[in-house]
Parts: sequence; C-alpha cells; structure tokens
Amino acid sequence: MNHITGIRQEKYVNPEELEQYIGREIYLKGSIYKIRRMKGFAFVLVRTARKIIQCIYVPEEAGFLLSVIREECCCKIYARVEAEERSRTGYELHLLDVHVLSEPKEISPVVINGKQMNTSIENLLNYRPVTLRNEKERAIFRIQNGITDAIRSFLGSQRFTEIHSPKIVFAGAEGGANIFRLDYFGKEAYLAQSPQFYKQMMVGVYERVFEIGPVFRAEKHDTSRHLNEYTSVDFEMGYIENFEEIMEMETEMLKHVMEHLKEDYVYESELLGIKIPEIKGIPTIHFREAKKWIEKKCHRPIKDMDDFEPEEEKLLCKLIQEQTGSEFVFVTHYPSSKRPFYAMDDPQKSEETLSFDLLFRGMEVTTGGQRIHGYDEQVKKIKERGMDLEAFESYLMMHRYGMPPHGGLGMGLERLTCKLLDKENVRHTTLFPRDINRLLP
Amino acid sequence: MNHITGIRQEKYVNPEELEQYIGREIYLKGSIYKIRRMKGFAFVLVRTARKIIQCIYVPEEAGFLLSVIREECCCKIYARVEAEERSRTGYELHLLDVHVLSEPKEISPVVINGKQMNTSIENLLNYRPVTLRNEKERAIFRIQNGITDAIRSFLGSQRFTEIHSPKIVFAGAEGGANIFRLDYFGKEAYLAQSPQFYKQMMVGVYERVFEIGPVFRAEKHDTSRHLNEYTSVDFEMGYIENFEEIMEMETEMLKHVMEHLKEDYVYESELLGIKIPEIKGIPTIHFREAKKWIEKKCHRPIKDMDDFEPEEEKLLCKLIQEQTGSEFVFVTHYPSSKRPFYAMDDPQKSEETLSFDLLFRGMEVTTGGQRIHGYDEQVKKIKERGMDLEAFESYLMMHRYGMPPHGGLGMGLERLTCKLLDKENVRHTTLFPRDINRLLP
Repeated sequence: MNHITGIRQEKYVNPEELEQYIGREIYLKGSIYKIRRMKGFAFVLVRTARKIIQCIYVPEEAGFLLSVIREECCCKIYARVEAEERSRTGYELHLLDVHVLSEPKEISPVVINGKQMNTSIENLLNYRPVTLRNEKERAIFRIQNGITDAIRSFLGSQRFTEIHSPKIVFAGAEGGANIFRLDYFGKEAYLAQSPQFYKQMMVGVYERVFEIGPVFRAEKHDTSRHLNEYTSVDFEMGYIENFEEIMEMETEMLKHVMEHLKEDYVYESELLGIKIPEIKGIPTIHFREAKKWIEKKCHRPIKDMDDFEPEEEKLLCKLIQEQTGSEFVFVTHYPSSKRPFYAMDDPQKSEETLSFDLLFRGMEVTTGGQRIHGYDEQVKKIKERGMDLEAFESYLMMHRYGMPPHGGLGMGLERLTCKLLDKENVRHTTLFPRDINRLLP
Repeated sequence: MNHITGIRQEKYVNPEELEQYIGREIYLKGSIYKIRRMKGFAFVLVRTARKIIQCIYVPEEAGFLLSVIREECCCKIYARVEAEERSRTGYELHLLDVHVLSEPKEISPVVINGKQMNTSIENLLNYRPVTLRNEKERAIFRIQNGITDAIRSFLGSQRFTEIHSPKIVFAGAEGGANIFRLDYFGKEAYLAQSPQFYKQMMVGVYERVFEIGPVFRAEKHDTSRHLNEYTSVDFEMGYIENFEEIMEMETEMLKHVMEHLKEDYVYESELLGIKIPEIKGIPTIHFREAKKWIEKKCHRPIKDMDDFEPEEEKLLCKLIQEQTGSEFVFVTHYPSSKRPFYAMDDPQKSEETLSFDLLFRGMEVTTGGQRIHGYDEQVKKIKERGMDLEAFESYLMMHRYGMPPHGGLGMGLERLTCKLLDKENVRHTTLFPRDINRLLP
C-alpha cells in the first residue's frame, strides 16, 4: 500500500525568488505570454502565478527552435538567470530549453497581452476566462485577495469569529422586493440579500462575528455601481456603548487593509498605478448637515431631503477632501424612513437612526449602524411598519431570549476595490459579474 | 467636524487574559450563563466571547442583590480576580458590582446551560439561535473557524490565490438533475453546485486558486450526511505532473489543520473531548482493489462494482485503520462512468479516471482528481456523453485558448468537522442546516 506523506521538494523554482538564482540554471513552469521577435533574438515573456518573467531567446544558446512555442503555450522551461541592469528586476532569463505541456487550439479573438486591455467592457466580460490572463486584469483580483486577507487577519486579532450563514433563506432581511425567489422542494424560498439576521443571532453566541460571502439583490438597476450578486464583508459586534464604536472598528480595519497592501502588494500597485490612501482619521458628518452643506456650497437645490442622489455623494466627497484631505467620510444619522426595521432610532430624535454610510471617492461602500436589541422595541417597530410579525419568528428568538446592545456593517468588496483602483465600473473589479443582462460566463 | 481615528483603549479586559490580573479589580462584559445558588453564596458563570468565566457572588462583598441578574442577562461586571487553586483556570472572579445592559424577555424553552444539550436534534436546530449559546455547541463552530483559518494560511503559503466565483450560474457543473432553479429576470438560472468551472478557468490565470464558499445541491436525500447547502473548500492547481500531487497537497493541508487545532484550540478540544488525528501519511488504495478487499475480508458480496455503498466506506476505513493505523484513506481511480465529464481518464485504462476520494473515519470528505485540459479531448467527451456542447461554450473557452495540466478537489467543511468531532449527523456541525425539510431558522 502506498502512502502519501505530503508535498515534496519541487525542482521548479518559485518565480518570485528568481533573484536568488542569478548566475545559475533553473527550471521554471509558466505559459508564454508574449513573444517579441527582434533582430537575431527574441524577448519571450513568461506568465507565472503572480509575475511576468522576461526571458531572452538567442538561437545560439537555446536548444530548441523558437517556432516550437507560441503565445498561451504552457511550458516547462530550462534557463540561465543572468544579471541585467537594464531590466526592472535586475535580471533576465536566457532560455536554454523548453518542453511544451499544452498548446492553445486557437488564438484568442481579444488581444490579452497588451499593456492595457484595449477592448470594450462587453468583450472584456464576454471573454473573461482569457481576458483575466492580462497582467493588469489579474492584478486587480490579487489586490482584492489582499484586501480580504487583511480584513480576516485584523478581525481575527480583534476576537471576531468567522461564520458561514445560509444563502437559501425563508425571508429576506430587507423585505419583499428585490429578492430572488426559488422553489425549495415545493416551498418558496429566497436568496439571502445579506447575512443580517444570522450575524445578529451569532452576536448572542460569540459577541463578535464576521462573514465574507455572496449576497443577492434582484434589483433592476443597470448602472456602473450595481450588481445582482456581490461579495459582502459583514461584521457585527456586541456590547457596544454607542454606534461610533462600529465606525472606529471599520476605520482601524481600513487602516490595516491599506498597510497590508502597501507592504505586500507593491508589485500589483505599481502595475496598476494606484495610489493607496493614507488613513489618519475619517471625518463624520450628520446626514442633514451634509445635505445642507452640499446645497449651499454647490448651489444645488435639494430634491429629496431623506436620501442622497449619487451626484450628491460625489460632491460631498469632493467638499470633504478639500476641507480635510480625507478621501473617506462617514455620513451619520440617516432618516429612519430610509433604514430597515432593525435599525435603532436615535433616542434623542426618533426620526433619525444611529446609523452611518461610509463614502469613499464619491461612492457609498459601507452601510452600518446600531440594531435594536430589545424584544418589545423590535416587535413594536415591525408592527408599526405593517410587516408580518410571524415571518420574523425565528429572528425574534434572539431578542426574546436576550441580546447585548450591538451593531455592525456590510461593505461591498467589489465597490471598495473599484474605488481603490479608480475604476469607472464595479464590473471591472468583479471576477464574473452578474447583472440584469449578464449571466455568463 | 469630528474625526474617527480608530479603536480606543478598552477599559474592559480581554477575558482570555484574566490570569494577568490576579489580585486586581477589573471590568468585564458578558452574559450570565448560569447561576448556582449555594449556602451563603452563589456561583455565577459568565459567558464571554470564547470562554465561560467562573465568578463568585458573596452578599457581603457584592454591591448588588443577586436577584438583579438572571440567566441570559447581558452585563458589565466589576470584579476582583483571585487566585483559586481548586479552579481549573487557577483563578476565580469575586463579583463586586454589576450593571445590567439587557434582559431576556422570556426563559428559553430548551435548557442551554447544561454540560450537554439534552434535547432532540429537532429542538437543537429549531432553537438554533439560543442552543448555539451552549458552551459545547458553540465550541464546534470555533473549531470550524480554526479549520478554515488553517486552510487559508496553508494555501496562501503555497501561493494559491483566493477567489469569489458567482453562485448564480447558467449551467450546473454536475449536469441537469439535483440543481436549484430560479428565475433571473425572465431567464432560467441555477444555483452553483460547485465552483468547478470557475476555479478551472482561474487556473489559467493564477495557476493555483481556492475558494471557501456555499454550494447548493437539490438532492432529495434525507440522511445524516447530506445537506442541500453546505460550505465547500475547493482548490485547483495547475502544472501538475500527476494526480498524486493533488493528494500530496491535501495531505500537507490536513497536517497543517491538525497542527493548528492542537496549538490554538486546546480549550475547545478539551471541552468537546476530541482526539485530533496525527497525520504521518495517508494510505492510498485503488478503487477496485478496495472493493475486492472489503468483499474478501468482510464476506460481503459486491452489489455495485462501480460505486461504494456507505457501509463499504465504513468497513474500508476500519480495515485501513487496523492495517496502517491511519484514520484517513485515499481511494483512487474511480470508474469513468461515475465521474463527471471533465474528469481525466487514465491513459492506460480509459474506463478508470485519475481521480480520488478521501475517506475519514468512515465517510467521504473530499472528491478530487485531474481534469481534462485539452480542447479536443474535452469536446470529444462531452459529445460521447450526449451532452449539449453549446451549453459549455464559455467553459470551453479556457481549453480553446490554452490550459496547463491541472486538477483539484472539493472538501465538505461540515463533513470534515463532523468526523473530526465524532458526531453522528452532519447537521451538528452546520451552523444553520438546510435540508429537504428544513429552511428555518
């Protein structure tokens, strides 16, 4: 009987450690990203897991014909690492031999190995499995992975427990509209619009919890900032003294994210030419103050006193940045009428909630606030809104048997990435976007 | 304008660091887990994020009446930490004062503060938001969090990139049956049965990827090991030389998981009385050999030569453990007829696949194998199976434009936890299970 004892020593080098092998011959795996034929030699760019490696093909030293390889071939490569001052990395690889593992059947109809993806967003998304092979496209989702890694390590350090809540649910957190329905063995079920109910329940168990997972919104919006499925970063914390504590936790978390990116994602940040924000502090402004300020400063009459128009969010961010230098701003105390039934009203002013949005470079990226933890108070608000109390029976179980004061937030991962990378459309920072017209690939 | 600068110094101590405060008075937050009245004093157990803290109420030293608190009250506590040899932790807290933040409306109909949850699995699940407050119940999902943390840190160290693939999809990886359907703006869509297609596509981008997320199976099984929604740990790796490399990676990953639990989850492991397996190596056995071996050793006629019955999986694990001491076993080379269309057949023997299952303590916890990476080969197999080629157009895009040899696996997180904890039913290790009869809470 054979035994598998674990991973073995690789004969292939880690492409991120090539500078350690200068002057030596090495084995490498990767796919041919680009071949540039020059006079008497060729540049061969090899795509590895994270980096594109520049190789030189010189017929006199290579033991193979250049015609053996073409773009998107997957290969094992034998090469000599040589110091090269003119290269940005300080070295380049001289190809000695190559073994082709697989070849493409066809050449991609969209050019994927240019400096930029020079195509429409439609094409970019239609050919996602190949367009993501472009070095800049894929760098976006490495950055995104850096964001989630930093969030997890930060929340772990703050004694949050990660949970996995169900996505097929009985009732939607946000109520009836904008919800996907499905047949669940003859019963009607829904896709979760957020892990709201479950993360609150789990505050009664672990005090602090978080989840990073998919949420589903059947909204018919067709805008550059809406998607019908996205990744939500949710956290919820118990025993808060006030709702500022939630904003404090988010501020600290974002600081940690930016530090992590600055430290470990220099390669991707430079490739994408992004400016990672310096977060010293995030200003807060009361929702009503913000409305009035925008009206006054931008000579823009208020249409809806209870909500922001997207343009107002942009203007507010501009004003805040001018005044404070911050690219983030917390807007607090949203009107009760615009917040869900579980939002806690301000005891001083019941038409306002102890809630906030976080705006970043002109777009809302987070919604959060304190929740109602008392049973009677929650029942009263459900009834006042004319909602069906019975539908919330299992949700109300936690209030009935005791809950600490608590609150939390939900942050759109793709939106945060979008603004961080200064992209125009959230689809650019979504791996395989789902919108009203798109279900493929 | 106010600025939020980050989290502030807490006046409340971290309950996991109480031994540092022996001889001192401290503030603590938590909920009253249990009150045991004794002659002239009382034991008050306080539930904090991770641990239950034993406190003593002595009327002479406490500045409040015991009647002020009751079980499931959420409190701020002022107490003196005293060394106490008879306590398992070496200390206990003497209550000096208490401030009740919230009270339960009612007493839970199921007793949640016993040593064990002494109720039916039905009740356990019906009252999940409160039964999870039991110290042993919640320890299960702390362990589960330890498993996912260890998996992520291990795969990160092996240069895997974490991805978030869509759950609303156009076609199901496993084909037509057992799939949840939904209306997607007038089109028929499905819930993803696995991230299979997407993780393969992403191998063409990052070489190695993983995802930990929900998957959905509309199976009508009503057994102790099936759920209709569960958390799948999926990884996929490119440039493999053979399918053993996938098993090697999983073995190393599981070693890492067990080490992590042994190091950081002693509290939960002792509470649950679990024995964390020592993984030195995992034996492998060919599927057909295994069938014959079970038949011979257990005098059990083979009913289906192409598949295991659950009882056979149990017997095989028993035999393997007797012979090798291992609680895990890889069964390899499953028949092609039982594997999906993307499984790579053994070039030596086309009726067998380069695939495996991992069995652990009698149950399958992982399915994996090498995939077809060549376009022509994949098209041929789809056609041979009479499947609709057009439905796989965007999937086949990756094969068409070039893919490295690759393979991967999917592991059921709840099943792994179930067997690790020696539970009878996978529902015990699922936070909020979804089965053919259960959609709530």
